[in-house]
Amino acid sequence: MQVDLNCDLGESFGRYTLGLDEEVIKFVSSANVACGMHASDPVVMAKTVRLAKAAGAAVGAHPGFADLQGFGRRNMSLAADELHDLVLYQLGALAGFCRAEGLRLSHVKPHGAMYNMAVQDAAMAEAICRAVRDFDPELPLLAPGSSELPRAAAAFDLPFICEVFADRAYQANGQLVPRRLPGALIEDEDEAIARVLRMVREGLVRTIDGADIRVRADSVCVHGDSPKALVFVQKIRAALLAAGIAIRTAGRTDA
Amino acid sequence: MQVDLNCDLGESFGRYTLGLDEEVIKFVSSANVACGMHASDPVVMAKTVRLAKAAGAAVGAHPGFADLQGFGRRNMSLAADELHDLVLYQLGALAGFCRAEGLRLSHVKPHGAMYNMAVQDAAMAEAICRAVRDFDPELPLLAPGSSELPRAAAAFDLPFICEVFADRAYQANGQLVPRRLPGALIEDEDEAIARVLRMVREGLVRTIDGADIRVRADSVCVHGDSPKALVFVQKIRAALLAAGIAIRTAGRTDA
Amino acid sequence: MQVDLNCDLGESFGRYTLGLDEEVIKFVSSANVACGMHASDPVVMAKTVRLAKAAGAAVGAHPGFADLQGFGRRNMSLAADELHDLVLYQLGALAGFCRAEGLRLSHVKPHGAMYNMAVQDAAMAEAICRAVRDFDPELPLLAPGSSELPRAAAAFDLPFICEVFADRAYQANGQLVPRRLPGALIEDEDEAIARVLRMVREGLVRTIDGADIRVRADSVCVHGDSPKALVFVQKIRAALLAAGIAIRTAGRTDA
Amino acid sequence: MQVDLNCDLGESFGRYTLGLDEEVIKFVSSANVACGMHASDPVVMAKTVRLAKAAGAAVGAHPGFADLQGFGRRNMSLAADELHDLVLYQLGALAGFCRAEGLRLSHVKPHGAMYNMAVQDAAMAEAICRAVRDFDPELPLLAPGSSELPRAAAAFDLPFICEVFADRAYQANGQLVPRRLPGALIEDEDEAIARVLRMVREGLVRTIDGADIRVRADSVCVHGDSPKALVFVQKIRAALLAAGIAIRTAGRTDA
Repeated sequence: MQVDLNCDLGESFGRYTLGLDEEVIKFVSSANVACGMHASDPVVMAKTVRLAKAAGAAVGAHPGFADLQGFGRRNMSLAADELHDLVLYQLGALAGFCRAEGLRLSHVKPHGAMYNMAVQDAAMAEAICRAVRDFDPELPLLAPGSSELPRAAAAFDLPFICEVFADRAYQANGQLVPRRLPGALIEDEDEAIARVLRMVREGLVRTIDGADIRVRADSVCVHGDSPKALVFVQKIRAALLAAGIAIRTAGRTDA
Repeated sequence: MQVDLNCDLGESFGRYTLGLDEEVIKFVSSANVACGMHASDPVVMAKTVRLAKAAGAAVGAHPGFADLQGFGRRNMSLAADELHDLVLYQLGALAGFCRAEGLRLSHVKPHGAMYNMAVQDAAMAEAICRAVRDFDPELPLLAPGSSELPRAAAAFDLPFICEVFADRAYQANGQLVPRRLPGALIEDEDEAIARVLRMVREGLVRTIDGADIRVRADSVCVHGDSPKALVFVQKIRAALLAAGIAIRTAGRTDA
Repeated sequence: MQVDLNCDLGESFGRYTLGLDEEVIKFVSSANVACGMHASDPVVMAKTVRLAKAAGAAVGAHPGFADLQGFGRRNMSLAADELHDLVLYQLGALAGFCRAEGLRLSHVKPHGAMYNMAVQDAAMAEAICRAVRDFDPELPLLAPGSSELPRAAAAFDLPFICEVFADRAYQANGQLVPRRLPGALIEDEDEAIARVLRMVREGLVRTIDGADIRVRADSVCVHGDSPKALVFVQKIRAALLAAGIAIRTAGRTDA
Repeated sequence: MQVDLNCDLGESFGRYTLGLDEEVIKFVSSANVACGMHASDPVVMAKTVRLAKAAGAAVGAHPGFADLQGFGRRNMSLAADELHDLVLYQLGALAGFCRAEGLRLSHVKPHGAMYNMAVQDAAMAEAICRAVRDFDPELPLLAPGSSELPRAAAAFDLPFICEVFADRAYQANGQLVPRRLPGALIEDEDEAIARVLRMVREGLVRTIDGADIRVRADSVCVHGDSPKALVFVQKIRAALLAAGIAIRTAGRTDA
């Protein structure tokens, strides 16, 4: 039994530092690496790919909107082809750094507003998956289940890595409870960890309504942007290992 | 006997159109495609790669400084690693669009101030060639002879494509006469074409001082940014063909 | 009797040229000058302000989203304060160039997606007008009637300049017929001009449903981005002058 | 007897935070506020102007090159008019935020590579001072003595504020010892403070060669980008106050 821990990395830019990359990389199996549009720059990308390689973590692309000021978190209306080309650009750019280090791109996870919009918007999910397929038909998409993204991935025959969230409540339809609603966040860390263990081992999660639903937990999304987040990653990792669950990337690994 | 005609392409950006790409692509064998830093954007790059593919022209990368306002023509002081990473980023980004179209990147030609500075600056030439080598050790560099660029390409065992200029005078050391000096431009079109033919057939060019020097003319740099430039490209092409010289890319072609 | 002709100007950027500014400026009374976010750069702004000054046209600010690739035409979701600060930034930047030329900013007209979104979105209209008020409480807002923008301008006691469109059909509620609907564009130039004359002289326009509604026509929006548009501006201007209507800015003029 | 303490502020950008602005603002009399080109964005600028206002510090403009990735620290070759317009743009943008808060711009201090290049380059110093004069002929320039900047300020009749450095060694010609040379930094804090006191009280500083030269110390440049720097600001401030020297902006104050 195994599971992936994925974490956004490489979000610094120029003189601006963000995230505890050198710490959190020790505990995760997959890095979602920013590609220079919502965050990062070529120097940061080169460093981050080397950091992930040294730590043995898989390197995935984390494409976002071209909105550095908004950190890719502001919704933007792009035509489908604009979105396709924007994602393709970022995949290629990161893949170049991987290639220079003898690595292959492991997976793709859209960032921020691009991710959130595509979860609900079939045309956006299709444009993103078409970009991934055009770049490499064997490159897996990492995204939440019960969303437009796995549907689009299936339409393009892309491998799909289903991610779950330790600290978020689920609705009966398998989607997250929106952050603005009460109960959206699982604030008790032990409860969050127990939920992760159950999702990984049993494929079940208790919804906010109290029922159990099936979830597919290939990868757990964790964060490395604060000391508190870092401690939580270590706790999840320790709990998984203690339960006999290996931490291993769900992305493409090269034999 | 054959020679390459290379031309900068894909320099439009968003709503801004530049160059007569759809016309000039018919007459050249290699396109130097802008990569989104000094010009272009993902949509323009996707279109330009498709345009070159349809025309049967080779697609090379044309990386430049991250200075859209200055069109990559303003000198910038970058550390060697910054330059290396900036070039690698652009190679990967364009290669992604090539890959989506089933093409391989044909060659790399630095743009504008990056090109002009590297011609004279061994550390910059080295950083650029190191980026090309790290991306793909078989990817040719296209640049002028008698400069730091072929020296650096040799140091990294990169294939080198030597370009010549139809409308520029040469010094005894094989370098161009700076534009600000009298006689720097060959303004008579027939003379320019005769010089190209001689460079290709005999490997010789008459310098501004009246002596002949050896030049290696793998590729002739032409322009497609004005109707006048376009007519000139057609004239050069016709003269080469009439002389029995094939127009064929000097870049990497895939059998 | 008088009316203003307003036109977007100064939309070039770096080496990229857009619009026939030097021609159209002769025929309009107010220039909406791009401020470096969706288009333009400091050099273009300086030139455009001098051009408008020389032609005797009033200089208004044309703030847009920070989306150069999308030319400010892609919807973006900004928090109210982000929008307020973004507009204030652009007002100040353009006002600096006016000041250097001994001019005062004449008016403010939001651009593209910012304009279209604010027409319908009270919170955005409020944020924009708050920025104008914070910059200068006597600076007029130029926008369409029957929209959230004049409501917000009134709430902040800003002078309001109501603009009408020569080539667009109106709905019964005073709003434009969306472009995607049949009949949205008035394609017959003579009809368009007759409509402008009637709006200016009688304050009436025939809607797409065939009824007359009242409109306030302080300013007519015209375009200078193509030779055809330029000819049309000249025609409107000639028709207005022939009807004894003076072409005069509706913006703030300094005695 | 009085002196100014000036500090760079407002260098955060979007989600990226830089500097201990809320702390250091308590101890300085003048803030050099970034204007959105090498650092900052409209939201940060609005916040920083409010912060300075609340603390009673003067707000000066800190214009830099349009190089966010390089933090304005990489040399760029701009034409004189490009530089003039770039500075004018930034002065206007920041002045808009000042105006919204009922403040006037206090002074102008170029940033980073623009500052360092202009210190040595008369044409650049002239372009910068021309922009300041065009914006407001009474706006003071803050820069080091013994450089091209005060000469250009004098040529344009701009008020000049001469800044000195606590932690840097001086050459006999009044210029700083370049950082790469031994002895360039005054590492002993007490010695640095003693030097500041002497510069302010006596107008003298001991050069690296052991001789005394005259310096004009209107303002002392301090930093707030690390806890260590913050402690040092407090020490300098305390020492000045203990010596009966008032800390007061040297910039333009409005009666």
